[in-house]
Amino acid sequence: MKWDDLNAQPCSIARALAVIGDRWTLMILRDCFLGVRRFEAFQARLGISRTIVTDRLRLLVEEGVLRREAYQANPVRHEYRLTDKGLELHPVILAIARFGDEHYADEAGPPVLRRHKGCGCDFQPVQVCSACGEPVSARQVEARAGVGFAGV
Amino acid sequence: MKWDDLNAQPCSIARALAVIGDRWTLMILRDCFLGVRRFEAFQARLGISRTIVTDRLRLLVEEGVLRREAYQANPVRHEYRLTDKGLELHPVILAIARFGDEHYADEAGPPVLRRHKGCGCDFQPVQVCSACGEPVSARQVEARAGVGFAGV
Repeated sequence: MKWDDLNAQPCSIARALAVIGDRWTLMILRDCFLGVRRFEAFQARLGISRTIVTDRLRLLVEEGVLRREAYQANPVRHEYRLTDKGLELHPVILAIARFGDEHYADEAGPPVLRRHKGCGCDFQPVQVCSACGEPVSARQVEARAGVGFAGV
Repeated sequence: MKWDDLNAQPCSIARALAVIGDRWTLMILRDCFLGVRRFEAFQARLGISRTIVTDRLRLLVEEGVLRREAYQANPVRHEYRLTDKGLELHPVILAIARFGDEHYADEAGPPVLRRHKGCGCDFQPVQVCSACGEPVSARQVEARAGVGFAGV
């Protein structure tokens, strides 16, 4: 399979990864959630080529994850902001952060702390079932083909 | 920055992505959570080269995400199973699936349905705060440097 064929798969994970699965894309999205908005800032923070940044931002805009907005008129300059669709990627980034905090933090502890404004506490994300509200672990999930499954 | 330098970043997301951020690695992990265990099965399902599969599986074993286990003695054949650390990646995969279900499913609906064995219902994962149990969205989170932050 070529990477470009992924979005033809009857699999939501494959299709989502066709958009966000690129390694640098995920790092750019991390930065978006930290409030980074400008091309130069993405490039400086990640220390990668302009081409990589340009390509990744273009795909994210095409897919409606980011929107490109002028923040200055003369000369025109643009910034990149998460759309509502983009904000829905927050659970993905947070789940990755949690795994990293758990397994790759230095002895001093996680490098970044996250506070839930709602309750004022530092927190880690917990994944619960939309039906019963209980935490869900891998062993408690049974996957089966839905009507949207065309067969592979 | 080179990709290999990511794990030196004082960022749990960067460090986690240094291990799982590769596109095919995430597809392999998807398959692991669907019960795929054998080299040939990973390769056949993804239709990618043996080299890519070999490399990705080796890194996942080195990192303790998968363990390699003999399932046959003569000739010796191995399978790859998620470790406890690997099972902790379930929230990442599930969060990606949810984003895909939401934005990339066909009209007929999500291709794969997931049932929570605990309550017997089909569900979507919801991310809640570990402190108060309420759902957490991007706008409700404030990130700050922790003691494990060495500065970039």
